[in-house]
Amino acid sequence: MEIKKFLGIDVGGGSVRGSVIDKSGKLYHEDKIQTQIDWKNEEFLQALIGLVDKIIKVQMPDAIGIGTPGPIDMDLGTIIKSANLSSLRNTPVVSSLKEKFNLPVYFNNDANCAALGEYYFGKGKGSSNVIVLTLGTGLGCGWVYNGQIFNGYKGNGMESGHITVIMHGAACGCGKFGCAEAYFSATGLLNRYKDKTGEELKSAEEFFRKVSEKDDNCVKILQFSTDVLAELIRNLIHAVNPQKVIMVGGLTASYNLFEERLVNRVKNIIWPVFKEYTEIMVGEKIAGSYGAAALCFE
Amino acid sequence: MEIKKFLGIDVGGGSVRGSVIDKSGKLYHEDKIQTQIDWKNEEFLQALIGLVDKIIKVQMPDAIGIGTPGPIDMDLGTIIKSANLSSLRNTPVVSSLKEKFNLPVYFNNDANCAALGEYYFGKGKGSSNVIVLTLGTGLGCGWVYNGQIFNGYKGNGMESGHITVIMHGAACGCGKFGCAEAYFSATGLLNRYKDKTGEELKSAEEFFRKVSEKDDNCVKILQFSTDVLAELIRNLIHAVNPQKVIMVGGLTASYNLFEERLVNRVKNIIWPVFKEYTEIMVGEKIAGSYGAAALCFE
Repeated sequence: MEIKKFLGIDVGGGSVRGSVIDKSGKLYHEDKIQTQIDWKNEEFLQALIGLVDKIIKVQMPDAIGIGTPGPIDMDLGTIIKSANLSSLRNTPVVSSLKEKFNLPVYFNNDANCAALGEYYFGKGKGSSNVIVLTLGTGLGCGWVYNGQIFNGYKGNGMESGHITVIMHGAACGCGKFGCAEAYFSATGLLNRYKDKTGEELKSAEEFFRKVSEKDDNCVKILQFSTDVLAELIRNLIHAVNPQKVIMVGGLTASYNLFEERLVNRVKNIIWPVFKEYTEIMVGEKIAGSYGAAALCFE
Repeated sequence: MEIKKFLGIDVGGGSVRGSVIDKSGKLYHEDKIQTQIDWKNEEFLQALIGLVDKIIKVQMPDAIGIGTPGPIDMDLGTIIKSANLSSLRNTPVVSSLKEKFNLPVYFNNDANCAALGEYYFGKGKGSSNVIVLTLGTGLGCGWVYNGQIFNGYKGNGMESGHITVIMHGAACGCGKFGCAEAYFSATGLLNRYKDKTGEELKSAEEFFRKVSEKDDNCVKILQFSTDVLAELIRNLIHAVNPQKVIMVGGLTASYNLFEERLVNRVKNIIWPVFKEYTEIMVGEKIAGSYGAAALCFE
């Protein structure tokens, strides 16, 4: 029996990468193009189709999985809009690929693909209850339960960046207040710094550099935001009892600056039964395209 | 083909009730005994077996489902302890019934049984994603997803009373701070009243009577606690996207005193996609024994 191969495509802020892999994670072929952040629908779809075309001439897959920033409409197979690719609007990803290539196409948001990547190829392997938090510009989340990604209603499952941890708290990008994302995300940390000092930092890297240099404001903001992240993890544990809570994304590069406080705090506030059960950890650097390919596995 | 019949037993603070029903909710026989709040393990199990014995002599069921206050250990089939029946400790409910009656026995906590009751016989009928909040002494919760109760790890699924809504907030009975239960439960409301006034009220009924009489402290506490309940519901919606959030339990008798604020507040803070999707409502008064019987349906 021939081993099935799957083309996973990750639409990221820097590049669009396509990888043909099998269920074991063996790579057969890979290619990428640079992301143009001002892509309009047609330009983006043309570039995407060009990339797929090039890849499948070398290695034909049995199905295509694609992960993009969201919000997406899973029912329609469209990107509703995207913070990174701000000229896209209701982009018909699935129908475009299906029409052109006549292959099954699976579609999800990038956080859910990251979760599947960790579940199949990373730290989540073999666990029946895994939550992956993507700590980047925003705070995304995916939940893999009994081997399946939880999509919820139209793909809005586990949007834990917008779980309230401090009622009437800091303003969030979503327009509401006190969401976890308003504290523990690049945007959240920089906004809290601006609240406190009136000054703007250029990036999360700069923020964490200042933490390393013991800048008092940054240290205090990171401590407070870490406590918020701990409460978010508590909430997820008490709601759906994950065995593993895996953090991925850019901010985990600075995990050493908040790990001890985070882990101690979570252990302190969760129910005793979970103290020996739930593990908190940083994930492996699984390519988004592998997670996207995993959309085809089920 | 004979219709299968199930004996559901609800262990409540006032009585232990057993009902033999079928999947349609048709009642074949029913009986109850009074709860003795100082029951020790042996006395409780003897009373329970006596009740079952009496019932099955009239109507033999195909299986037994039993719901009790918790925390319970689903794996062991025991009540770990119970706030209402405070002399019980690691009570072997399942093994005792199985040994005596040689029937399949299904066991869960009372909040999960309440959720199944609403799902099969109440307002949750026909929905694939239902959350039931039990607003009583504490704040319990059950989640019925795709027709199955979510038990999570050892039956600790969806313990949403202990989801943090206000980090570093009011002290909760669980020993931590800012849990939803610390605000919206009989215990929470009375404790918040005591914090504010230094005085103790006898019961939630008294609290709500004072709200009706426009007592300023009670009105303000109820408003604040209602806002907390709204944030909890937001958190549950953003996490697992329920189509219906159904409230049951003693405090819903006073729903008219907080309905408008609650519903408006939830609509205001949830994502637009859920505004037309998720409904919030008070459940029907489904007997706990019906929910317990529903444990046998799967």
